[in-house]
Amino acid sequence: MSGGMDSCVAAAIAEREFEIAALHAGYGQRTETRELECFEALADHFKATARLTVHLDYFTQIGGSSLTDTRMPVGEADLANPNVPNTYVPFRNAHFLSIATSWAEAIRASKIFIGAVWEDSSGYPDCRPAYYDIFNTLIRVGTRPETHITVETPLIHLKKRDIVKRGLELHAPFHLTWSCYRATDAACGVCDSCALRLKAFQEAGVDDPIPYQTRPEYAQLSN
Amino acid sequence: MSGGMDSCVAAAIAEREFEIAALHAGYGQRTETRELECFEALADHFKATARLTVHLDYFTQIGGSSLTDTRMPVGEADLANPNVPNTYVPFRNAHFLSIATSWAEAIRASKIFIGAVWEDSSGYPDCRPAYYDIFNTLIRVGTRPETHITVETPLIHLKKRDIVKRGLELHAPFHLTWSCYRATDAACGVCDSCALRLKAFQEAGVDDPIPYQTRPEYAQLSN
Repeated sequence: MSGGMDSCVAAAIAEREFEIAALHAGYGQRTETRELECFEALADHFKATARLTVHLDYFTQIGGSSLTDTRMPVGEADLANPNVPNTYVPFRNAHFLSIATSWAEAIRASKIFIGAVWEDSSGYPDCRPAYYDIFNTLIRVGTRPETHITVETPLIHLKKRDIVKRGLELHAPFHLTWSCYRATDAACGVCDSCALRLKAFQEAGVDDPIPYQTRPEYAQLSN
Repeated sequence: MSGGMDSCVAAAIAEREFEIAALHAGYGQRTETRELECFEALADHFKATARLTVHLDYFTQIGGSSLTDTRMPVGEADLANPNVPNTYVPFRNAHFLSIATSWAEAIRASKIFIGAVWEDSSGYPDCRPAYYDIFNTLIRVGTRPETHITVETPLIHLKKRDIVKRGLELHAPFHLTWSCYRATDAACGVCDSCALRLKAFQEAGVDDPIPYQTRPEYAQLSN
């Protein structure tokens, strides 16, 4: 659970069937402190019976992303641009899934829920559906014969507005989440992540409960 | 490069064709300090033009292995036992490969060499050849379209004795390596890793240059 809206809704879906062990990874991203606070609040909300917080400091050594290299500016949203944005952290989700798999194998958990979104998101290659199919094969081959763990991606084909709607149905605590890539007090409203989030709430016809420095009207821009 | 004999020979193979960027991961294993010293010596030997050392402290939180949980004893070698030994660290190699892939993508490296050994080793599920084929697919799907990285496993089908012979041909600096799971001054000689190593040197008909507390005769036991 990053502390963002997608992992919050994924957790709300998971808790209908499963006891939750909550995993959070900081990786030197700009908004790490705020995301960790949100994670703790969400883990409390979802009554997580175990939680694991890890700090992948080496991502700042590796660099290659504006999220972890403060010399690279986080660009403003350009949702029509088909290229991978500079906020892409090289191969990041494999780290999260590997930690989740190791932990799941050690505590005998059966499912790993992740709030990855493909079609209606930033175009990060490690969010595409085929990636998770392959990872499930990797888990099957790379763990003990008696281990049976699968990664679940309940949001991967949803539009962001439908994630908001699904979250509202499930009473997901959106007020406890954070998505902005840049700021930690009031969300900037204009980075890629804010743009996707504000557009989603606007298209769903509801107010986003978190504070923003500015709330551009994204819905009309994005037909 | 763990600092062990296999990654040393893998590096000796890689350096014939490539400039080396050397990656080492500590993960709270018992012999971490000694392995790190060996890594640094090997990176010097192979004239690595970049090096990255990471500490995956969360493995001690995750547990589930005698290598990272000091309450679980590291067993003595039982090379005939077909079960996964308790030194298996859940899904460990996926962490190493994920870090290597992220770093490779950031520095534009093209190959990841890993000294994994399957048939003639401990039976860890994340050392089998299919695992690396799947990981290569994961990299292809999960990185930028312009990124082309493959994992190379030059030792995976070799017998351990043939890894020793290959290393000798390539003048691999075995004296700079460490394999023991238990001790850091003189290798114990009886853990799984020592047993595989001593047996390999004995079958290759050469002396292992590192110090041992005891050197059982493994070659005769293992036909």
